[in-house]
Amino acid sequence: MDPVLERTWNKLTDHIGRMDALAGARSLLEWDQLCMMPSKGATGRGHQLAALAAIYHQMLRAPELGRLLQRLEHALEGLEPQQAPVQRGCLRNLRRERGRAERIPVKLVEALERARTRGHQAWLEARKAQSYAVFQPALTELVGLVSEVSACLVEPGDHPYDALMDAFEPGARVAQVGPLLERLAGELTPLLDGLRDAGWPDPAAGVQLAMPVAGQRELSHALITAVGFDLDAGRFDDAVHPFTCGMDPGDVRITARYNADDFLTGFGAALHEAGHGLYEQGVPAALVGTGTGRLLSTSLHESQSRFWENMVGRSEPFCRWLSELVAARHPELSPGADALYRASNRVQPGLIRVDADEVTYNLHILVRYRLEVGLIEGSLLPDQLEDAWNDAYERLLGIRPTTPTQGVLQDMHWAEGLFGYFPTYTLGTLYAASLAEAAQADLPELWSDVAAGRFAPLLGWLRDKVHSRAALLPGGDVFTSAAPGRDPVRDFMAHLWERHGVLHGLAHPAGAGTS
Amino acid sequence: MDPVLERTWNKLTDHIGRMDALAGARSLLEWDQLCMMPSKGATGRGHQLAALAAIYHQMLRAPELGRLLQRLEHALEGLEPQQAPVQRGCLRNLRRERGRAERIPVKLVEALERARTRGHQAWLEARKAQSYAVFQPALTELVGLVSEVSACLVEPGDHPYDALMDAFEPGARVAQVGPLLERLAGELTPLLDGLRDAGWPDPAAGVQLAMPVAGQRELSHALITAVGFDLDAGRFDDAVHPFTCGMDPGDVRITARYNADDFLTGFGAALHEAGHGLYEQGVPAALVGTGTGRLLSTSLHESQSRFWENMVGRSEPFCRWLSELVAARHPELSPGADALYRASNRVQPGLIRVDADEVTYNLHILVRYRLEVGLIEGSLLPDQLEDAWNDAYERLLGIRPTTPTQGVLQDMHWAEGLFGYFPTYTLGTLYAASLAEAAQADLPELWSDVAAGRFAPLLGWLRDKVHSRAALLPGGDVFTSAAPGRDPVRDFMAHLWERHGVLHGLAHPAGAGTS
Repeated sequence: MDPVLERTWNKLTDHIGRMDALAGARSLLEWDQLCMMPSKGATGRGHQLAALAAIYHQMLRAPELGRLLQRLEHALEGLEPQQAPVQRGCLRNLRRERGRAERIPVKLVEALERARTRGHQAWLEARKAQSYAVFQPALTELVGLVSEVSACLVEPGDHPYDALMDAFEPGARVAQVGPLLERLAGELTPLLDGLRDAGWPDPAAGVQLAMPVAGQRELSHALITAVGFDLDAGRFDDAVHPFTCGMDPGDVRITARYNADDFLTGFGAALHEAGHGLYEQGVPAALVGTGTGRLLSTSLHESQSRFWENMVGRSEPFCRWLSELVAARHPELSPGADALYRASNRVQPGLIRVDADEVTYNLHILVRYRLEVGLIEGSLLPDQLEDAWNDAYERLLGIRPTTPTQGVLQDMHWAEGLFGYFPTYTLGTLYAASLAEAAQADLPELWSDVAAGRFAPLLGWLRDKVHSRAALLPGGDVFTSAAPGRDPVRDFMAHLWERHGVLHGLAHPAGAGTS
Repeated sequence: MDPVLERTWNKLTDHIGRMDALAGARSLLEWDQLCMMPSKGATGRGHQLAALAAIYHQMLRAPELGRLLQRLEHALEGLEPQQAPVQRGCLRNLRRERGRAERIPVKLVEALERARTRGHQAWLEARKAQSYAVFQPALTELVGLVSEVSACLVEPGDHPYDALMDAFEPGARVAQVGPLLERLAGELTPLLDGLRDAGWPDPAAGVQLAMPVAGQRELSHALITAVGFDLDAGRFDDAVHPFTCGMDPGDVRITARYNADDFLTGFGAALHEAGHGLYEQGVPAALVGTGTGRLLSTSLHESQSRFWENMVGRSEPFCRWLSELVAARHPELSPGADALYRASNRVQPGLIRVDADEVTYNLHILVRYRLEVGLIEGSLLPDQLEDAWNDAYERLLGIRPTTPTQGVLQDMHWAEGLFGYFPTYTLGTLYAASLAEAAQADLPELWSDVAAGRFAPLLGWLRDKVHSRAALLPGGDVFTSAAPGRDPVRDFMAHLWERHGVLHGLAHPAGAGTS
């Protein structure tokens, strides 16, 4: 390396290393808040999170960092475009993050952190009281602060929601994401109509899915380690709302929750979080602390969890392997591969997003997306939100929530100030379908391997095509290079028809979603 | 409050609040490292701890903080001495902490943090390999760095060890602590001689102390909540080496470990850590974030754990209550109050500090103190340490370690760069004896309350006399105001004779330790 570049690079990675350490500490504080912290720790924890966020923000805005980035840029100008990819990725990512931070006052960052802590508490209380009104003041405050953030960031001509989505999916815009989600909803209609006309058939009827929670936990352990999650570089715990938290590739923590009446729920959650966890564990050590080791695209992250949960975990070959695993430990249950496959793929509109099947799931996202856009552009007021939510469910899914925990209070995202996050769930789901097509083309033995419980070749493919690139390239570019030339909506619809059309005996409408 | 003072105070507590948040985050990272972290997280955790320490150090040295402290000093000059005690305590504590930090370069702080992480790993490996040689290079590095720290801090005429002790016990000096420890050793001699001549009688012979670990854990829970530890403001977990970790009074975490053959070991550890935990939970909320809410005197901290473990937990009335608690849940065991009391108070020289009785414990400390002073002043080299350790045990306790885990590798303090910490264990033990005398004088019902499991009056007394003062006053002043005019060595010796002399039928030498 050129000595000028090397000197600059050493100073820069020193600064970034400290920022990463702060981010890692924040992750642990959040994991602990959800898994370990006693109730009276909430106030102190709120202060700690706010202080760490403020210090991080200051380090991001430090003039010293600006000077180092400028020097890096000059040093890179003299090199060929394919040289120094890590330094180029670092420059792009840090410039972008710094650009956002420079426009947001530190006071606003701290206020938002404190409001998030209050919001989370209010949300818990509102759920207990079954009353949206208890949560509304906190939500109003959060929408106000988040709108202030958006106002600091939004480019002329952009939608105010763009600046929020951009935090989770760099470059995402209402002008593209909106039509994509609406197109998907349109393409889902014939499939949903067919299933509705058939009376939402239950291919799982009579399948015995009850299992004591201790047994489920043990099998979930077996499941996540079988797909490759390394428990020496992570943890697997219980949580009320499953989530993944990565401090660095050597310490990635995933969680699951169990339903004693239906072991497939717990297994699905475990596989979903393991998908996130494998991605975090797969970041190359050499990228850590270089500004290219953080996973900036939430959609790409979600593509990994959906890949393992849906494309693999609900597939027929996986259900064959799973049925053997279950039978070996619980011979009294052993529902058989075919029954497991059918039970894994029931489609029926429901009120709870996290319990939804892979077909109706995206309608839940569409509801949230439309409401968020309304709240941020001001066309929907927080005091209208509960009715708007209930109306949307009635219109899109044909059912109306009767309690707020089954409705507007079900997700914790808004309580935590996360606006612009929801669409990445559907984007990730769509990416997963295209990645599965690409993996299948590269790995002819893919499905026989899965049926035999050999997941290493697939994990190797994902490591190579996705995980190892981390944030070296923008998320969309990683996807495009892993699954070149593919249309994710088309791939996803083809997958749904192939799985659910066949399973439910529906005729595939000519031309829709053929791959 | 005077408006100038108020403005300064608000800015100052803002700055201190952020520093406290960093310190709290560090505490959590350390707790997690010992209780939760997967093995491959060690490297990343080391970076995180080093980065947080460096940022904290920078905030402590910030010119802005210096200006604010100067302004506070000016504002206080116009007030009466008894006014604004919190502000005065803050000024004293922050000036002291800042004074130390200004003299230590940030690079040295970071190097020490990294060496601590490496030291801990090397210590674990050395224990596994039963080889002091495996640990020695890491120890040599740590002694070197710690000596550099001392060289930055030491005042002309002081011993280099003074600057290290001062971090744990502000104001402690070799010139006072050394003679105190030696005087104590001298006063212990007649009691130890008497016990040795009697052949180290075992008053616990035949007492059945085995209990399954699950039962011990459950009873320890009952124990710590009975004395007042609030589990809504803390946690109680297992750990290989019991410790306490306080993030703030609302989140204090204690740990214990159990020995299936001897439930008294686990109960003792639980009570010891509960004593620390009660102190941390007892810091008044109003002092948090003011620079007077941190517990700066390690001796005072230790006085609280020793108070509950020894003065209360090994007392005859407590054993009466405990025997009822054990009998209620495990009628098959119920060894009886007298047997429990005898078993709690066996005296016998052993190799392991944390397993030691309250008489010989202080000899373990004396060994460490002498060796530490030698290492820091350079009269003892790291490659001579193992032999020096073994020789000292043979001379002082009459037994010689045969493996390094039973000898020089038993404590993790040095592996973590903690030099100057050990003497506070004995100082705290001595303080506890005088505090018990003072509490007894103020609470005539003390021992009948304890026998009935009523610990609230005693906890109230400690809250009032010790906990509520936190770092408003220097540690020694808190002790002196809680137990005015008392001589801790004399009180401690009187306590030992009263308990162990009587229990073992020894004649009290005239004049020694009468109170």
